[in-house]
Formats: sequence, C-alpha cells, structure tokens
Amino acid sequence: MNGELIAIGDELTSGRIVNSTSYFAASHLFAAGHTVTSMTTVGDETEMIGQALLEAIDRSDFVVLTGGLGSTTDDITSAAVSAALDRPQTFYPEIFAKIQECEAFKNSPAMEKMAWLPSGAEVLKPGENMAGFMLVYAEKPIFFLPGVPHQMRELMLDRVIPILATWQENSFHLVHQKIYKVFGVEEMEINNRLADLENKDERIRIGYYPMAAEVHVSLTVCTATIEDTKELFLAKETLLKAALADLIYGEDEETMASVSGALLRDQGLTLGLAESCTGGLMAKMVTSVPGSSAYFQGSVVAYANEVKERLLGVAAETLIHFGAVSEETAAAMADGARQATGADIGVAITGIAGPDGGTPDKPVGTVCFGLATPAGSFQQTHRFSGKRALVQAKAATMGLDLVRRFLLNRIPLQVSS
Amino acid sequence: MNGELIAIGDELTSGRIVNSTSYFAASHLFAAGHTVTSMTTVGDETEMIGQALLEAIDRSDFVVLTGGLGSTTDDITSAAVSAALDRPQTFYPEIFAKIQECEAFKNSPAMEKMAWLPSGAEVLKPGENMAGFMLVYAEKPIFFLPGVPHQMRELMLDRVIPILATWQENSFHLVHQKIYKVFGVEEMEINNRLADLENKDERIRIGYYPMAAEVHVSLTVCTATIEDTKELFLAKETLLKAALADLIYGEDEETMASVSGALLRDQGLTLGLAESCTGGLMAKMVTSVPGSSAYFQGSVVAYANEVKERLLGVAAETLIHFGAVSEETAAAMADGARQATGADIGVAITGIAGPDGGTPDKPVGTVCFGLATPAGSFQQTHRFSGKRALVQAKAATMGLDLVRRFLLNRIPLQVSS
Repeated sequence: MNGELIAIGDELTSGRIVNSTSYFAASHLFAAGHTVTSMTTVGDETEMIGQALLEAIDRSDFVVLTGGLGSTTDDITSAAVSAALDRPQTFYPEIFAKIQECEAFKNSPAMEKMAWLPSGAEVLKPGENMAGFMLVYAEKPIFFLPGVPHQMRELMLDRVIPILATWQENSFHLVHQKIYKVFGVEEMEINNRLADLENKDERIRIGYYPMAAEVHVSLTVCTATIEDTKELFLAKETLLKAALADLIYGEDEETMASVSGALLRDQGLTLGLAESCTGGLMAKMVTSVPGSSAYFQGSVVAYANEVKERLLGVAAETLIHFGAVSEETAAAMADGARQATGADIGVAITGIAGPDGGTPDKPVGTVCFGLATPAGSFQQTHRFSGKRALVQAKAATMGLDLVRRFLLNRIPLQVSS
Repeated sequence: MNGELIAIGDELTSGRIVNSTSYFAASHLFAAGHTVTSMTTVGDETEMIGQALLEAIDRSDFVVLTGGLGSTTDDITSAAVSAALDRPQTFYPEIFAKIQECEAFKNSPAMEKMAWLPSGAEVLKPGENMAGFMLVYAEKPIFFLPGVPHQMRELMLDRVIPILATWQENSFHLVHQKIYKVFGVEEMEINNRLADLENKDERIRIGYYPMAAEVHVSLTVCTATIEDTKELFLAKETLLKAALADLIYGEDEETMASVSGALLRDQGLTLGLAESCTGGLMAKMVTSVPGSSAYFQGSVVAYANEVKERLLGVAAETLIHFGAVSEETAAAMADGARQATGADIGVAITGIAGPDGGTPDKPVGTVCFGLATPAGSFQQTHRFSGKRALVQAKAATMGLDLVRRFLLNRIPLQVSS
C-alpha cells in the first residue's frame, strides 16, 4: 500500500528536535512492504494540520499522523482533525474513567481533554494509559499516534502494521530490501565496485547511505510476485557480496558492537578497554548491546595522564618520550587494559579529537590504536577527518572493528618476545 | 519570510536514516526569524521531486532542498529540477576543472555528472569541492544543498542564512525564542506551573518537548516590531523563570554536561567516575564538551564485579552482602573513583538497565548513585522507566545533575566520621 506520514509540532518546524517518529514509522512500513510516498511536517496550526491531512488522504491508501495528542495546551491535533474531517469532538467516558484511575492525573483537569476524540475514533490501546486512535475516512485507515517516541513505536508495531497487513492482503512481500554495512571505505569506492549491478533494471535499486563512520548499502528489489522477488533478490545479493566481499561487516540491524560482541561470545573471550580521546564512547557502544556483560569486563577512561599511569601502568617515560598520542603509549595502554580489567583482549585508543590539541606532526584527528592479546599485540595510527564528535565516532568504531578483525584472524600480530 | 524544506532520498522515505538535515535547517531558519511552514520528504523519484518543488515554490517565499546532489547513480535531484523548472542541464567547465584537480576523483567518470547543473544555477561555494547551488525562480530564492550533513550545515550557515537575510531586510528579529531545559520533572507538572502564562495572547507560544531524560520548554514571542518583541519577551521570561525556578538547569544550547562542566571549571575542581550500568555513557557525555580535559580525570567503567574490586577497591563483602546494585556499593564505588582517578569529586552509578537482570525488589530501571567529595558523601536510589537505552540516558543525566547540584550546594552531604 502507498501511505503518507504527517508529523505535527512546532518543535519540529522550528527545529527544536529531530523527527525520529517519522523515521521509525517509515522504516517499519517499508519493511512491511508498504511504500511511503511522502512525509510531511507541519506546526501546531489547526488549518495546516487539516489541509495536510486532507491532501494526504486524497493521494494515498493510508495515513499515519503523529504528535499533538497530549494534554498540554499546544496539543491540538484531535480538534484540528474533527474540524477537517467533519467528525465532531465526542466525549469517551471509558477513556475518562482510565484517566481518573491514574493517581498522577486525578487532579489535573487538563487531562480531561484527552477523553474528547473525533466521532468514529477507535482507541488503539483501550486498556492502557496511552493516546492514539484510528479513523476510517473515505474507506481508508487513518492512524493518529502520540508523538512520545516509545508510545508511538509501541502502537506502530502492535497496531498499525498488523491492521495494514490485513487491510489489503496481497500488497506486501513484493518488496524486499536488505542493508549491507561497510566500514573503512569511501562511498565512491563502493559505488565503483557495484557499478555493474546498476543496470537499467527498474526492479532493482541500490542506495548508498554514509552514516558517520560507516557506509550502509541497500539492495532493494520490487516485482509483481513474491517468487520473482525472492529469486531476483538472491541472484543480485550474490553479485553484491562478491563485489564487496570482506568490506561488509554486517547486515540490517547488526551494528559493529553487536557483530564484534557476538564473535567474543562465540569464542568465549572477554574484552577490556583503555580509552582516552573517545572518552568512554567505545565502552558505551559495547554496552549498548543487551547481554554484553557476558564478554565485557570494563573500560578505563584515562583522560588524564595521571590515570594512564596509575590505573593502566603506562610508564611516565613512555608518556614523556613518545607522548600520550603515540603507538608506544597505545601499546602500553592496551596491555594495561588487559591487566586492569582481567580481560583476554585489551584495546586502547589515544588521540586528538579536537578542536584543540593538534600539532603540525600530530594534527587534530590523529588517533593511535593498541591491541593486546594472549597471542601478541598490534598497533596502528589513523588520521580521521571531521569535527570532534565525528572523530570520536570513527575512532570508537575502528576500535570495535579491530576486535572483530582480530577474532576473524585478519590482524597481523607482533609476537612479543 | 515563510519557507519550505524538501529533503530527498529513498534512505529517508524507507526509514534507513533520520532526517537530520531538515532539523538543522529548520532550527537555524527559525533562529534567523523565518517561519518554516512545511517540511516535505520524498524519495529518489524524478516526478515526485519536481511536483514537491513546484508546490513548495508556489506556497512560500523561499525553498531549501537537500539531498541527491552527489555523484552516485541514485542522485537525480539536479536532473529532476531541470525538468520541473524547465532549466536545461548545462555543463559547468569550472566545476569540472575542480573535479579534475582532485586526485581522488580524477579517474572516476561518475564525477563528471556533478558538473552538469540546471541553467541559471549559481554554485554556492565555487572555490571548494562541494555540491550545492542556488536558483532564482519566480523571483524566489531556491537553494539546493547536498545531503551530506557537514557540507549541508556549512552551506546553510555560510550562504543560505546570509542570502535570505539580505533578500528581505525587515522580515526578521520579529520572532524571539529561548529554550529552558528542565530535568527530573514530568511535562504535566511543568505545564501546570506555566498555566497562567498561557493566556489567549496570540503573540506568545509555549512549547513542551520531552527529550529522553529531559523536558525542554520553549518561550516564543512574535510581534510587529523588534522593540515590542524584546519588551514582551523579557516580561514573560521573568514570569516563566519565577514559575519554574530551580527546575531549570540551562538554556538554549547548554547541556547538562556543559553546565556541570562549567561549574567544575569555575570552582577549579576535577571529576572522576565509576560507571556500571551506564557503561561509559556518563563519561562520553562529559567528554563531548570540548575542553573537558581541564576538569575530567577519567572514568572506571566497572562492568564486571572483578573490576569493581580491583580498580575501585570495593570490598567483596560489600558486593556479596548488599549486592552490586546497592547504595553501599555505590558509595564504595564513588570513593574508589576519587582514589583511582585522583579527582576531587567522585560519582558512581550502578543499576539494572535491562532488559534482563531485574528482581522483584530490584526491578529493571533501579539505579543507585554515589557521590564522594572532600566535604562528605551522598547516596540515592532511583527507579527509571523505559527501555535499556532510555534508562542509561536518564541515569547518566542524573549523574551529571548530581555534580551540578552538589556544586550549587543543593545536596545534603553525610559527613563521614
């Protein structure tokens, strides 16, 4: 089905916050085989909301509208919809009852507003203290979801997607897409390698999405029958994987942290870190994976040299003679990380994230890496482009990739004498 | 001026990535006094792009279009615009020359495509290897920017904003907005406190934006003359600050990390951390502030109990008797953080971020905090709602707020005997 998304809120049109709800909705609608033809964002203006909604309904098979369902005075979606679709505001006693049940809301008259909905509205989760309803207008399903991200996500997955699935049985599985995640190569290089795949076949589309430290490549196949799609997709995927080979570290929802974490778990090894310029970002990425405690011991964020010496046992001479940003210091920090955390594998990152601290021979973006393992050690220096946050992201991802490549035996270790 | 934003790319309509460029553009256009009436996102479809552009031009005073200007095969904006606005593709030799200069691009024929622009296009940064141009159509400025975030941002600030400023002299400074950042209170509570400010005055708008662990409140004043705006804004700001008082931790671009960091710097104190469930997130937030090395010593991310004992000197008995998630362990970790990093102030976070690890008496979301200072110590337990990432974000922000409130003498310390 072709659908449109409408996000409502001055916080969006004034650039106060990123529109993450439309992003979430689009990704899951796409995965379910639907096509989002347009995404619109308008402010808290009754007329604008009504106009955008009517245009979207006119152009598409379904509409998902998010935001402005709350109880605060800037939440006007429900009223705007009533006016635009000529569905008078109706009092829903069962909703009001639920509001009364909730201690926190008992004494706030503003909450009563949430019990007034356009006539014909079906509450999506009647049992729960959550805004969100559905209308059928011009025989099309129109969904109204709260802008609160976690509520919107829950309703999207538990209600919207299933309802759409049954709405028009044969409309999905005709689109298949997979994402291939690449780190350490430029978009242009990837594009060159895939040039041959990009023949004029209308049914195939390849997308290139630079994401901070990575490039995500999407292969999308769209045909008239499920069989065609699967067959064609597998054929093209084989070509794509052959062209990119080892450059691909993961697919779809996999991240560098989840992939390297899975390898650690499978091989029964533990990881310990020593971070300077990334300031804890690599540890944060590792621990963003649920269950990472099975293989992650911990990290020493050694911002001050004093901490590098005290907790990681880096010799003062090493710091003085080679500097904090050097492969010698990185090697000592990696050893220290193993010792201090009692991990099998130690990874160290020390560099200059900027904006200050650069020198002619060690400009901003210079980052040294150290890897310490029972089998030997490895050091490397990289120069990353970009601002502070980007340099930190690239360095932390590189640190995780170092773990991944070591566990895949792709790192030439120096065996310490 | 009233403007519209159009973002282009299947990566957006298929939900591959968040649309951060429209967000950036909207925030800076708003700050410059313009009103973004609508933001539209369409895929890499020639017709859709053309239609969206013509509609936007028709409705507004200016249009900013981002994405699809690159050299890869899915970049079709320039061609789509040529067709829609009847501006034939023209070869720009000076652009081609720049491309030839660049080693990386020399041997890639695909790059030549970037030298073909709609006739009448003015390149925004002729001197640099960067896509991005401007057209004047129907006497309105239409900007075409690359989707690559850092290039888009640079062109937005260096070219688009200044050009719009001179385009219609008297159209800005008539809107004034400030953001007040609140942590630790519900949106509803804030809304109640500000109820009186929300009279029916058309010129004043208050917005409430829950942001992960925080709520951001915006006060916007829009009048006919600059003087009115300033006067009215200051009057309303005084009322707003009186109503929220200590709940406000910062304004506009300030973050909990920058505010607590500035207090540390001003008071000449250093900070050391011990993180368990936040896994380095608090350290990452501290070090996201440039210059944080002036007051940040480091952090021990003690995921394994072994590390809590070894690096933070937490007694095994404490861990066994009270558990890793307890105020006793948090207190010991905070002391350990001070000792280990040699910092003046130690903050410890230990809790259950989930999804696993919860127990009846310590459910997922239970987080214990410890604060250790030369003047005494403090412990506290909180129960945060939400999924793993949200619990981690709330806990790390709470840790920073603990530092902030201590430095403002708002924490009742226990003086250790």
